[in-house]
Amino acid sequence: METRGPWRRHGREQLCTTPRLVAYRDEITLPDGSPGHYDWVQVPDMVRVAALVDGRLLVIEQYHYLTGTMWQLPGGSMEPGERDSVATAQRELAEETGYREGRWTPHGALHPMPGLTPARVHLWSADGLTPGYPSPEPGETDLKVRHIPLDDAARAVRAGRITCAPSAALVLRMAASGEY
Amino acid sequence: METRGPWRRHGREQLCTTPRLVAYRDEITLPDGSPGHYDWVQVPDMVRVAALVDGRLLVIEQYHYLTGTMWQLPGGSMEPGERDSVATAQRELAEETGYREGRWTPHGALHPMPGLTPARVHLWSADGLTPGYPSPEPGETDLKVRHIPLDDAARAVRAGRITCAPSAALVLRMAASGEY
Repeated sequence: METRGPWRRHGREQLCTTPRLVAYRDEITLPDGSPGHYDWVQVPDMVRVAALVDGRLLVIEQYHYLTGTMWQLPGGSMEPGERDSVATAQRELAEETGYREGRWTPHGALHPMPGLTPARVHLWSADGLTPGYPSPEPGETDLKVRHIPLDDAARAVRAGRITCAPSAALVLRMAASGEY
Repeated sequence: METRGPWRRHGREQLCTTPRLVAYRDEITLPDGSPGHYDWVQVPDMVRVAALVDGRLLVIEQYHYLTGTMWQLPGGSMEPGERDSVATAQRELAEETGYREGRWTPHGALHPMPGLTPARVHLWSADGLTPGYPSPEPGETDLKVRHIPLDDAARAVRAGRITCAPSAALVLRMAASGEY
């Protein structure tokens, strides 16, 4: 038996496994003492990057298979062998925009769906970057990179144009910091 | 065949089903023309509420089964039969804090994990609320309600104390609006 705060876990069943996700059903005792199950999903941690070039934020416009056209900060999932999220952040920024090197600053991590998955999204900012050639993945060939003033990006969050939750949180944090 | 922007879907397999989630594997053609699969999860839409009482934000402190102790705005998943997210927002706020009635304002919706699920988190704010008795669910008996000045809540986001991504985005939006 495993104790997690006021919860107890008595067993675990693996419901399905794919290269992208694993779904589990845990047999538990809830905080009020009643028996039950907790179904959850394991996916890799992710990253989002606030990359500033000439005082403008790099924003990706892309058609997402599940959600349609979205504006989002550069980023993606940590790959096997990437131990530090900054490695993922630097790889994803270079793949999607071509920008590399520069100065990198961590801004903590968020839980995008704490009821469904323990996965986190690690937040980074970068400036002083060097331009280069992007190398988009097979699902990203329609990707466009926009250079947007930070205040306009914050307005795009409020207007519902940037709907990726971790991107929205990082844009608003950067806009409020007054540093850029 | 279904067309979604530059993606094509040729088939779908249901991998596993529980009362809380369904996992699917879609057979697809990627934007670059290569064949592949897209694994994704269906869960209900969710809500988060920025509820202001005497100029302070109601923040929930609670042990989450997957992520440990978290600060988060009141909210949760839409239940069957709830057609409008404001009904969910009002139910969750009353269950978790006792506060009800009042004036409600929509602030759009975010995609918490657009690569994994099309589910959205609908954002609401509320003020002019009437206090009452909470009715926590079996997993929420350890829940504490804190009344926090909006600026302190924004600082709690920056300090990594509020890590729920949709909560963080809504707190920063409210703090930047200057209306409260």
